[in-house]
Amino acid sequence: MRALVLDDGLRFRDDREEATRHRHEARVQVLMAGVCNTDLELARGYMGFRGVPGHEFVGRVVEGPSKLVGKRVVGEINAGCGRCADCHSGDPRHCAKRTVLGILGRDGAFADTLTLPAVNLKPVPDEVPDEVAVFTEPVAAAFEILAQMPEDAGREAVVLGDGKLGLLVAQVLAQGGFSVTAVGKHRDKLRVLRRSGVRVRIAGEEERLKADVVAECTGTASGLATALAIVRPRGTVFLKSTVAGKAEIDLAPAVINEVRIQGSRCGRFEPALAALAEDRVDVTRMVSAVLPLEKGVEAFERAAAPGVLKVLLRVAH
Amino acid sequence: MRALVLDDGLRFRDDREEATRHRHEARVQVLMAGVCNTDLELARGYMGFRGVPGHEFVGRVVEGPSKLVGKRVVGEINAGCGRCADCHSGDPRHCAKRTVLGILGRDGAFADTLTLPAVNLKPVPDEVPDEVAVFTEPVAAAFEILAQMPEDAGREAVVLGDGKLGLLVAQVLAQGGFSVTAVGKHRDKLRVLRRSGVRVRIAGEEERLKADVVAECTGTASGLATALAIVRPRGTVFLKSTVAGKAEIDLAPAVINEVRIQGSRCGRFEPALAALAEDRVDVTRMVSAVLPLEKGVEAFERAAAPGVLKVLLRVAH
Repeated sequence: MRALVLDDGLRFRDDREEATRHRHEARVQVLMAGVCNTDLELARGYMGFRGVPGHEFVGRVVEGPSKLVGKRVVGEINAGCGRCADCHSGDPRHCAKRTVLGILGRDGAFADTLTLPAVNLKPVPDEVPDEVAVFTEPVAAAFEILAQMPEDAGREAVVLGDGKLGLLVAQVLAQGGFSVTAVGKHRDKLRVLRRSGVRVRIAGEEERLKADVVAECTGTASGLATALAIVRPRGTVFLKSTVAGKAEIDLAPAVINEVRIQGSRCGRFEPALAALAEDRVDVTRMVSAVLPLEKGVEAFERAAAPGVLKVLLRVAH
Repeated sequence: MRALVLDDGLRFRDDREEATRHRHEARVQVLMAGVCNTDLELARGYMGFRGVPGHEFVGRVVEGPSKLVGKRVVGEINAGCGRCADCHSGDPRHCAKRTVLGILGRDGAFADTLTLPAVNLKPVPDEVPDEVAVFTEPVAAAFEILAQMPEDAGREAVVLGDGKLGLLVAQVLAQGGFSVTAVGKHRDKLRVLRRSGVRVRIAGEEERLKADVVAECTGTASGLATALAIVRPRGTVFLKSTVAGKAEIDLAPAVINEVRIQGSRCGRFEPALAALAEDRVDVTRMVSAVLPLEKGVEAFERAAAPGVLKVLLRVAH
């Protein structure tokens, strides 16, 4: 099959073997896939991943349980061992033996087909087009913040970073009832938030803002220090950037102000799909380009360029 | 009056003026005071404090509301402005304009008398002797972890650090129903935990431990990395060290495992006093020395020496 393969560098291949479909798994024909910052990091060596990257997708089930075959689906990316306590509780996201689609031990979505446990797949409502459904995974990651939100959190929120995740987090917090200020460096990116009810602010002196909740989505080492300067005592800082690496951080303000720093990663798909179906989160303005799978290497380059938001790969119709 | 004064260095003086007692405040004759690591840090320049240090004390009210005069008391150390939302909710611990006894803008307990808002003072039950009551403030700081504990936290806890705070946190978690392992470098310090139900372990390979809750009480830069290696996915790390300063930290594991890093500082006195009165926390084994106020400079030196736990100052009888 056709696939983008990461080995020594990223290459388009047309001779990649389809993955073996294991018991409980389904095979999905990929319709559309999105390039995420994590994919760009993988291409730079993060996690040491080798194989087919890609974890944001919408596709159609071609093999698996009969009630799923033919359905248009999106898929949660963590595939658990099926035997540990996490998996038995129906949540494989932290299974110690999990594989992760296109990230850890499992070929991903930049290919004609992929396999995932059937339980991971969620049918997409007909009214949600491919180019919206393909955002389900990152929108779910943004919704994870609401799932983790302390019950007694105040309602004022600041989102740091105007990349793809920051723009989604800002919208999700706003539709969740928060008064949101988004801070970023790019006026054109922040324009996505028009009509979302989110106040936007160009970066500079944002330490003067005060908020109960701060979402750190800059992906930079200095983001946490800024977040700790903004968050009120006993407030919460959500950390969404996985590739921060080692950074010089002074955590004394977090201790003195009893701040909660909450790591936040993948979320449940249900609330994300519902929000997309009801148009509560606008993703179409975030699409910078749609390229065919054959131009996947170019798609990665485009996605890494300044000012670019989401680059999508059209794999099939 | 007599006092230890921190200016250019720490000195014993017998000509320090008593603090002015403001409306709503009481004057307390100090009976006994404890030297805390924060005091040692203040003497090294932390917070730029100048004046009388000392915030762990038991004393007797000599001026103030008639229902308090003559009572033996301990005192919460944060004195709020009395006008902000925090103060109106009865919690001045995070008032932005607060003074803090012996730490920030208010002379402290290493003196014949101190002043505090009357609302800060809590009568000490007769059965609790001075040398136990003087531990109320650090025991309350340990209890703050229970107050902040997520409701759905698992029951396995690891405490890193066998300093004074670590030993108290281990005991408080154990009496709070947790299965606790305390990790430290000093066999003699860990001996305090005999009969507390806490497992003890000499530092080395503790990264192999796994726990739902980890309390970082080492006061070292590497403590958080160790805590993040131990804590289970979706677990909680409590940060108790205020003087960590800038450190090289990789927070990616906290994001991937969705760990909550919870800053934790001062606690309420009520549960601490109750635990001391009911002998649920053993502090007497932690007393390394009791010196008169005049020997305060020596007391600081002793408190900083290896292997020493709590040094108390006897101010009056």
